[in-house]
Amino acid sequence: MSTFQTLPGFREFYPDALARRNHIFRLWRQTAHVFGFSEYDAPVLEPLALYKAKSGDEIEAQLFSFTDKGGREVALRPEMTPTVCRLVGDKAAALKRPIKWFSIGEFYRYERMQKGRGRCFFQFNADIFGEPGIEAETELIALLAQCLCAFGLTAEDFFIRLSDRNLWFYYLEALGLDEPRARAILTAVDKYEKIGDDAFKPYGEQFGAPLDPSIKEKVLAFLQIKTLAALEGALAGLDNENLAARLADWRALLGNLEAMGLGDYVSVDLGVVRGLAYYTGFVFEAFDRKGELRALAGGGRYNNLVGKLGYADMPAVGFAIGDMTFALLLEQRGLMPAFVQAPDICAVIGGPRERLAAFGDIHALRAAGFRVEYPMKDTAFGKQFKAAAESGAKLALIYGGDELAKGVVKIRDLTTRTEQEVPRAEVLAHVKNFFSGE
Amino acid sequence: MSTFQTLPGFREFYPDALARRNHIFRLWRQTAHVFGFSEYDAPVLEPLALYKAKSGDEIEAQLFSFTDKGGREVALRPEMTPTVCRLVGDKAAALKRPIKWFSIGEFYRYERMQKGRGRCFFQFNADIFGEPGIEAETELIALLAQCLCAFGLTAEDFFIRLSDRNLWFYYLEALGLDEPRARAILTAVDKYEKIGDDAFKPYGEQFGAPLDPSIKEKVLAFLQIKTLAALEGALAGLDNENLAARLADWRALLGNLEAMGLGDYVSVDLGVVRGLAYYTGFVFEAFDRKGELRALAGGGRYNNLVGKLGYADMPAVGFAIGDMTFALLLEQRGLMPAFVQAPDICAVIGGPRERLAAFGDIHALRAAGFRVEYPMKDTAFGKQFKAAAESGAKLALIYGGDELAKGVVKIRDLTTRTEQEVPRAEVLAHVKNFFSGE
Repeated sequence: MSTFQTLPGFREFYPDALARRNHIFRLWRQTAHVFGFSEYDAPVLEPLALYKAKSGDEIEAQLFSFTDKGGREVALRPEMTPTVCRLVGDKAAALKRPIKWFSIGEFYRYERMQKGRGRCFFQFNADIFGEPGIEAETELIALLAQCLCAFGLTAEDFFIRLSDRNLWFYYLEALGLDEPRARAILTAVDKYEKIGDDAFKPYGEQFGAPLDPSIKEKVLAFLQIKTLAALEGALAGLDNENLAARLADWRALLGNLEAMGLGDYVSVDLGVVRGLAYYTGFVFEAFDRKGELRALAGGGRYNNLVGKLGYADMPAVGFAIGDMTFALLLEQRGLMPAFVQAPDICAVIGGPRERLAAFGDIHALRAAGFRVEYPMKDTAFGKQFKAAAESGAKLALIYGGDELAKGVVKIRDLTTRTEQEVPRAEVLAHVKNFFSGE
Repeated sequence: MSTFQTLPGFREFYPDALARRNHIFRLWRQTAHVFGFSEYDAPVLEPLALYKAKSGDEIEAQLFSFTDKGGREVALRPEMTPTVCRLVGDKAAALKRPIKWFSIGEFYRYERMQKGRGRCFFQFNADIFGEPGIEAETELIALLAQCLCAFGLTAEDFFIRLSDRNLWFYYLEALGLDEPRARAILTAVDKYEKIGDDAFKPYGEQFGAPLDPSIKEKVLAFLQIKTLAALEGALAGLDNENLAARLADWRALLGNLEAMGLGDYVSVDLGVVRGLAYYTGFVFEAFDRKGELRALAGGGRYNNLVGKLGYADMPAVGFAIGDMTFALLLEQRGLMPAFVQAPDICAVIGGPRERLAAFGDIHALRAAGFRVEYPMKDTAFGKQFKAAAESGAKLALIYGGDELAKGVVKIRDLTTRTEQEVPRAEVLAHVKNFFSGE
């Protein structure tokens, strides 16, 4: 029956897997809430033009795009950023600043199928709109750190690499490079960590001559900067107003994060520039300390995108955490809890007549918020007691013929193995009392 | 910039709208949990063949279907039922019976655009697999009722119409009708409430002669049956084993629901047969009592679908509640709460130096679960106090130059308008104590 199978790269969540996913989403949502972010959601299907406007026509190859029955070019969303820009742009006048928003949703990419890479993934996206200063980066990097710490991860498990595309541009400008050359160098810097010196080849091809060795030496030294002191040293000789202002921003941002107690989580690292050309300032990525996994999260400032989509300009910073690498890290660190779906109460039911009596209590207990299970079919008492003991329930409510005749229910505490008889009319009150006293 | 606009019929959720949606999903999820249902999730995109196998080729016209880049015929899911059958069928041997599952997800239909009808909607789906008896219907109808009652709706707001496709077939058989004729009559019954006598026209066209008037009279009387007593009366003269067994099932199911205290919520109503031909027994629909809205929920037994998809046969019952009609009913009844996103605490910050001091506390308080807000930019004290008072926060933490010099924070109770100074090191403990005493 292969035609009915799940499409390649799409994800199914059986209850165990969904319990793990819900755990992650619940703590992300809760963390965003304490930081004062409001949740929004948006369509999974968008006009293809939205993504082309942000990322250029070549993005289409990576998208799950198609023509709909109405002749529209559409795509399953590969990311949230252009959509949230539209939402904010559409109601910019009505939204109170700063706009602090988050969402959790599924995204789709049409990637060639390979082992371990799917076509769907979930992301937590958080963005701040309307705040041009480093106060927005402060808030978002703190949120990112807490979104990981909320699960028990510490500075020994992950860190956030902080870089700055503006600083890079100002530095390359101070070295005498024009904008096209600066862009080509940043593309090389982005790839240097992975492929080494080959990253500079396209520069040579584009401009007909390799990058000047003395400039290249400075670029390679700059991308290896890992501390504020080293950054201050590298910029010391350069008299450039923009660079001086950026350095002040760096000091303020790192000072804020230090004051929040996040100094150990954040590393200066100019080797990060992020491939996406639309970032306009600070950029950051979170990684596991052991360096075994892909990036856990990434983000940065993108002040031009809302304007590019045709709205009034609006400063913006944002980041996204993907669910798959993150879940892997939690599992590696033993921080993914085992989810046992234990009932609070098992009803043990003698027979058809007792079942009718039990039904009234079962429904009332559930309506009061207790998770109650019972066997759907008449089952021997012994088997029911065994199942109740193994279920993890705290109480068994026993509806036998004797109890029914006396107008009582026998309530067994499955932990202490003690029993008591409770008048039928008092069962709900008794159970409430038992669980509130726990 | 109309090319970037949301696609027609797709839904955006700004924070206010999402808070209402989250409220609904939260109570549905909680209710399913107390009934012992486990949550699962599945892909939004599926092979088109999956839906054709369930509903026939003609379903394609209503689907958001297309050919993907790999040449596959695919569709955005219009419903969950075939998918959940595949999930259960794929792992049938490993799953403990009865399988009680639920999900909350978005679904898509390619409908002609009209006012008030979108192409996307959310559904809560609950199903029980592996239980052939009316115990499964009992559990699901009780869950459906509680999924509505959990919001404060009562038997004065909604009711569940219960019918039975098997009973109809056995009755028509007892009247001497063959299966094709019985199916054609059920199609007429399904439409009779809406279009009256015209519903029987297709029968006449199909069989070359209108339905025999004496049979038609019986059919019209049967579809108006609204009580168990009337049903017993209608069947009294007919000596048919199947009908007798079905009547026993009816008595047992209604007895169970009565025992659960749900008698007022459930009405016998043989006028409901549900259009979908794959139902094989009891069917039910929930409606508002005033009759102003479309169906709130619908479901029934479908014992043949898992087998039809190529797996071993598996009895199944399920229902779905849609989010849009349901939200409308809650709003009409004044049962949709107003969601005010109030912080717990506002930090009031004197200037840049005080900001650094405040950041440590703010982050620690958030990590401890308190929702804390603060102004991103230096703002006059008076304006900050006004904003704090208007925010709905319970406490203001005041970081001024004087407090900083003394090593304290001034904590203002915004309800009682009292203030006290607390040593910096004790702020977190003080706040925890304040909120736990609330």
